Formats: sequence, structure tokens, C-alpha cells
Amino acid sequence: MRNLDQHTITDAVLARQAATADPRLKRILDSLVRHLHAFARDVELTEEEWFQGIAFLTRCGHITDDRRQEFILLSDVLGLSMLTVAQNNDKPAGCTEATVFGPFHVEGAPHYDLGADISHGARGIPCLVRGTVRGPDGEPVPHAHIDVWQSDEDGLYDVQHEGLGHAQARGILHSDAEGRYHFRSILAVPYAIPHDGPVGDLLTATGRHPWRPAHLHFLIEAKGYERLITHVFRSDDAYLDSDAVFGVRQSLIADWKPQPDGSYLVEYDFVLNRAPAEGS
Amino acid sequence: MRNLDQHTITDAVLARQAATADPRLKRILDSLVRHLHAFARDVELTEEEWFQGIAFLTRCGHITDDRRQEFILLSDVLGLSMLTVAQNNDKPAGCTEATVFGPFHVEGAPHYDLGADISHGARGIPCLVRGTVRGPDGEPVPHAHIDVWQSDEDGLYDVQHEGLGHAQARGILHSDAEGRYHFRSILAVPYAIPHDGPVGDLLTATGRHPWRPAHLHFLIEAKGYERLITHVFRSDDAYLDSDAVFGVRQSLIADWKPQPDGSYLVEYDFVLNRAPAEGS
Repeated sequence: MRNLDQHTITDAVLARQAATADPRLKRILDSLVRHLHAFARDVELTEEEWFQGIAFLTRCGHITDDRRQEFILLSDVLGLSMLTVAQNNDKPAGCTEATVFGPFHVEGAPHYDLGADISHGARGIPCLVRGTVRGPDGEPVPHAHIDVWQSDEDGLYDVQHEGLGHAQARGILHSDAEGRYHFRSILAVPYAIPHDGPVGDLLTATGRHPWRPAHLHFLIEAKGYERLITHVFRSDDAYLDSDAVFGVRQSLIADWKPQPDGSYLVEYDFVLNRAPAEGS
Repeated sequence: MRNLDQHTITDAVLARQAATADPRLKRILDSLVRHLHAFARDVELTEEEWFQGIAFLTRCGHITDDRRQEFILLSDVLGLSMLTVAQNNDKPAGCTEATVFGPFHVEGAPHYDLGADISHGARGIPCLVRGTVRGPDGEPVPHAHIDVWQSDEDGLYDVQHEGLGHAQARGILHSDAEGRYHFRSILAVPYAIPHDGPVGDLLTATGRHPWRPAHLHFLIEAKGYERLITHVFRSDDAYLDSDAVFGVRQSLIADWKPQPDGSYLVEYDFVLNRAPAEGS
């Protein structure tokens, strides 16, 4: 393996990783090498551009910490996240569709009883959220684990508030014996994804806006059912057709109804797909 | 742009970046999106594997600092670096070939006079390095800027020695009026690239060793000539055919000759390609 050129190097790298023990990893890495090399040949990547790419990834890495995940943001704006979600969530008709996970989920959110106000001091117009969790045959799913998170009226998640120190507009609830859930929070508003870093520079350079239509995030898990990661969007949002991360699905849009006291109400019923039978 | 699936999302992302002002950037990003999406479809990437990819890039970013560049290392072991070098350095016959830059170059290395000992305390067997810098017609290139760097006998570059605080086995010299150069340093030895991070895990998982054959790095610049980034390898090295970063070129291999006093001598003559004429 000497004197490799731009045409012979791909086979040389594939030969070098031929001993990869895990066949799944081998399939992924072989394809990655082929596509990465094909990209560099296709655009005739220059050494200066290669340096810029290294610097871009380095910036993404250095701005990423416990509260910010620039690589997920990059995957989101390049459409890779929604592609991955789509090809892994081909559910039967009637099941709630999945969408992107996003960079703002936090493990270990506080637990709340049904009916509690999860805003926990986050600023915004009060909003009541309620509905049901059911299975594909309409059966209620009792005690489903419902992890919900959202931004405040400034378009910021709790983790984006420097020094806040506690969870806001984020929490875990469980559906009741009839699969019902309800909690208080604040009205979701459209917000710009973090665009003061390398991903923001990418959006600017490509003439793209950083906005996402208003939404609530849900991660729902229950024994015997597939995990569901999704959003509920607002029907009156101006960004439904230009979501910066390509996550909008028509079936996830709901009417958020103003109430006489100035608060809002949104109702959404989730339908979980059944998990594959154990051992199948 | 709602309800995008794994088949429709690629065109949606391309449409979103259609307004990219810089045509070169547009060409690169369009190709990147196409190849990235094709990879994810090809391997039917799962959400769990996507998370693992995000975590891998995050680890690369967090281990990268002023003295370690894991993204360059990743590009090197995947063959992307050598591919990029090869397709940008198609020089006329007789010119010295280029090879990978690597992650260990440092801007602002100390300047030395010809004949100086650039090891500056680095451990190793003394070695004299000498030769000429010429142009394609054999003309001497006087006062060429010669930036050289290498590892010590433990296989470590100065920047890998925690707390060292000064350059070792690294320096900048200038060829004399006849294009000649000579300096003292230490014998280059084979070494393992840093493999205590994510790139090391990748090598382990793919059954690859982390070794590079012994070499000296050179970056040579002179007015009127193309910049040359290259290595000089040792002809007696066991890793010449399995360099972890695919950088070996037969024309860059030299005999490093033991001398009666136990030191070594290596001679290498560089031939720079002429730079394109101004304004052409």
C-alpha cells in the first residue's frame, strides 16, 4: 500500500478495515468510506477546503457541552435527523408519527403528578395540555411514561438560560389508569435554533432562516409498545412549511385554543405502535 | 415542506439551500447532502446508530485542543486526507511528491540557523539531515522556508509531552544561496498515532494497528514555487506498507545511514513545482 492516489485509496481503506469483527459496523464503515471519498472526488475538494471542514467540525465540538449539542443541530439542519427518523418509524396507519428528537432533551427531568404545572417559573401564557395515550386497537395505555419539554416565551429552553440551575417547562408524567394525561405549562411559540455558532454560520451562508414552528416535545414509553419521540405543533404557525429542521408532519398539528381567561388549551391523543413480540 | 420521508427529504434540503450565494459553497454542500443522505439510506442507519455517531463526533470534538486534533486524525485514518492531498498535487514528473499534513504541525516554530540542532533536548539518536531545494529545471531555490517537525525516540511529538512548554525536534530553517540545507536532529522512529481516544477505538474495532513508519515532516515554501507538504521516510521501516494514514510514497523513502560514531545521516533533495504565473 504505497503511492495511493485519489482513485486507488478507497479500495485500500476498505481492505484495511476488512477484518472488522462486527459485521454491522463493517457495513456502516465501508459505506461511510465509499460515500465520504465519493463526495471529496465529486467536488474536487481542495486542501484549503479540507482545512475549513476540519475547523468547522472542531468549532462544533468545542461549542458542544452538557447543555448544547451542535452535532445534533448540524444533523437536524442537514436533514439527516429527519431522514433517520423517517426510515425507522414506518408505523401502521393510525399510529402517531415520530419526528426529530432535537438537541434539548435532558435525562432525569423532574417527575410531576397529573395536573401539575410543569412550567416551574418559565415565562409564557398559561396553557393546559391534555389527551390520551392509546394503543393501535384503541385500548388505553395506563401509566405510560410521558417526558415533555418545550421552550419559553423567549424561545429558549431551560438549559439555554445560563445559571438557571433547575428544570423549567420540562417534566415527566404518567398517564392514568384510563390512559389519560393532563398538565399545565405555557404556550409554545416559534423560536430560532441556536445560531451563534458554526451551524448558524452555515444557515447564514446558505440563505436559510433558523426558525422552528411552535411545538411541544413528547417522548412516550410504555411496556409492550414502541417508544414514540414526537412533537405537537400549532396550526396557526407561520413556519410550518419552512421548519429549519424539516420535522413538520401534518398529523402532528393541533389547534391551540384561546380560553376566556386568556390561557390556551391544546388536546392531543397519542396512539403508540405495539412493540414486536418478545423474542421475535 | 411537510411529511418529508427518507426519499423526499434530500430534494427538500437541496431546495432549502438553493439560495446559497457562493456557487462553490453551494456545489460542496449539495454534494455533501446527497452523499450523507445516500449513506444513511444505504446502511439503513438506525436511530441508535445515529446517536452513536453523534456521540463519536462529540468525543472527537472534546478531545481536540491546541495540542491534539482528533478530526485530522479521523480524516487521516479514513483515507480522506491522502485522497485530498493526491487530487490536489498532480505535479510534473521529477517534482517531490506531497503527502499528508498530519495533526502535529504547530504555527510559529522556532527559527534556527543552518547546521543548528533542532532537537532542543528531545531524546533520540543524533541524526544529521541535509540536501538541497531545487526547482523543476534543477535551479537552486535560495532562502526557501523549511519547516520541519518529528517525534522523539518515544514516538511522541513535543506537543504530546504534557507541560513541556517549549518546542523540541521542530523548527524553521532557510536554504542557503545555493539551495542547500542541513541541520541536526534525532533519528526518526515508527510511532503509534494517538489511540487513547475515539479514533483509537475505531482502529481497534476495525482490527487495525495505529503505527506509522518513521518519517520527518517538511513544509517548504519559496516565492515563485508551489508550497510542498511532505515527509521523508526510512527505507528500513517495517510499516512502510501498512501506514495507519496511507501516506507512504516510494519516492519519499530514503536510506538513513548509520555513521561510525553511532549517529545517522539522511540526505534528501527536494524539487519544488513552479507556482502558476501571477494572474493566470
